[in-house]
Amino acid sequence: MKIAIIGSGALGLYYGAMLQRGGHEVHFLLRRDYDVIMKRGLTVHSINGDFYLPKISGHRTSDSIGPVELVIVGLKTFANGLMCDLIKPLIAADTKILTLQNGLGNEELLAERFGSERILGGVAFLCSNRGEPGHVHHLGAGRVIIGEYEKNDNMRLDLIAACFSSAGVECKTTDDLKKARWEKLVWNIPFNGLCALLQQTVDKFLAAPSCRRLVRDLMIEVITAANAQNLGQAISEEYADEMLEFTSGMGEYKPSMQIDREEGRELEIQAIFRVPLEYGRQQGITMPRIEMLTVLLEQGQGSAPS
Amino acid sequence: MKIAIIGSGALGLYYGAMLQRGGHEVHFLLRRDYDVIMKRGLTVHSINGDFYLPKISGHRTSDSIGPVELVIVGLKTFANGLMCDLIKPLIAADTKILTLQNGLGNEELLAERFGSERILGGVAFLCSNRGEPGHVHHLGAGRVIIGEYEKNDNMRLDLIAACFSSAGVECKTTDDLKKARWEKLVWNIPFNGLCALLQQTVDKFLAAPSCRRLVRDLMIEVITAANAQNLGQAISEEYADEMLEFTSGMGEYKPSMQIDREEGRELEIQAIFRVPLEYGRQQGITMPRIEMLTVLLEQGQGSAPS
Repeated sequence: MKIAIIGSGALGLYYGAMLQRGGHEVHFLLRRDYDVIMKRGLTVHSINGDFYLPKISGHRTSDSIGPVELVIVGLKTFANGLMCDLIKPLIAADTKILTLQNGLGNEELLAERFGSERILGGVAFLCSNRGEPGHVHHLGAGRVIIGEYEKNDNMRLDLIAACFSSAGVECKTTDDLKKARWEKLVWNIPFNGLCALLQQTVDKFLAAPSCRRLVRDLMIEVITAANAQNLGQAISEEYADEMLEFTSGMGEYKPSMQIDREEGRELEIQAIFRVPLEYGRQQGITMPRIEMLTVLLEQGQGSAPS
Repeated sequence: MKIAIIGSGALGLYYGAMLQRGGHEVHFLLRRDYDVIMKRGLTVHSINGDFYLPKISGHRTSDSIGPVELVIVGLKTFANGLMCDLIKPLIAADTKILTLQNGLGNEELLAERFGSERILGGVAFLCSNRGEPGHVHHLGAGRVIIGEYEKNDNMRLDLIAACFSSAGVECKTTDDLKKARWEKLVWNIPFNGLCALLQQTVDKFLAAPSCRRLVRDLMIEVITAANAQNLGQAISEEYADEMLEFTSGMGEYKPSMQIDREEGRELEIQAIFRVPLEYGRQQGITMPRIEMLTVLLEQGQGSAPS
């Protein structure tokens, strides 16, 4: 399959490398690492075994990639203003677009521009980060759950899932992408938010009972809002406890938003916080702790609108 | 009147200096500035006009002060574990103790040790900080409201108020010390908490509407808990708006807790946050935003109990 990776951060590079190693024709839109990767290739340092791809098809523009069968979007959501223009040259009649971005609202944006029938979304449970240019570190997990934005072609969905699976990436399909997205937020909202705000790794928020309770309270707010969104099946409160347990196994993990803040990048507040708050509000659900966390993050990075 | 100042920080030094200038015999328990103040005296840089006291009665221990008529307590509440031992040598049969400390629980502690009949409390609306050793800066306001811990001697209360007033410190008395303390918390909880957490001055939290709304929501939580405490008269919601308006006039003010954090000192979380949360809880009032702010402050300074 001819695949374009738009947004070659840790996530895009990792999945792109896995798919290329799995035999697919993968093209990467590259920015800061273009020169190094074109000259020296890409090294993946993985808990499942390191590997090295000496030759990468890197591009500075999407025009030079041209139409593909599948676009995988790994862009940071604060760059969503550029997203559609970056994708436009990749689109042919049958091109599918799979966004693996964080938060809510990304499929909606793509569907509006390119038509909802070609849009798929996925949530990635991946612990990864970039090292020096030309290197990507896969620290844990890696599975993806993908679904159609509008249910219309299960065969296509299965085919894309098979591409991931045969390339060594655990991939499940779901009939309820919306639920999968909200489930991801049950983890993302407390941990991305708190770790970025206080610049502390996830384990620090599990040690003190008062802090663990705050994390759980934030999770319950997400679950309450999620269950007001007409999901196929409700998310149970036990899911919060499962996520706490799951996080215990992650050690001193830095969520992406903590790294973004450390490195002075913009934070993904819109997709991970503001859109979910708005979707909750539309169903009459208030989330006082999440609202407060959002305001503190905006205020901390100086982006609270005056 | 023979007065001892226990806790000679910005607040203790300022009121002590005013009372000494007003003709009282004031003794200061000094720690880090002892040598400088004994050698060079104390300079008050005040919005009402600077003044200089060449001779200060400074002491390294309370024993060397001996019994006094009035003890004024300006200690940081995180030092309350030492407080009673510092005060013991100052107590004679008629000695009164006036705590001007922040938060809740201080009168209770003093009453338990020294008897409730001699305890008075006050809230100080004072913008001040210490400069180089031997200097204190009075930046704004300065009035105090004082009251009996247990209503029993209005004449005594009026006498102490007159000491302040005649020394140039605006001083009112109240029959409802509990209400005055909670009213002070309406300001202290949001601004001390938020400014210390994000290391930003008060004006920054008034600029963005979302942030100003958070401040007001925190204030309303304090007011709700206050009004469950059997006050003489309820605190109205308009008081929150008055406090927001009042704060607009303060410019780039740093609350004491922000300075404490900047200077690496312990924060007054117990008296300003934990005791009010507990008093609220005892009356069935939950304060989700204040609880969250408290946990974040504890977590930020690494003091959340494991």
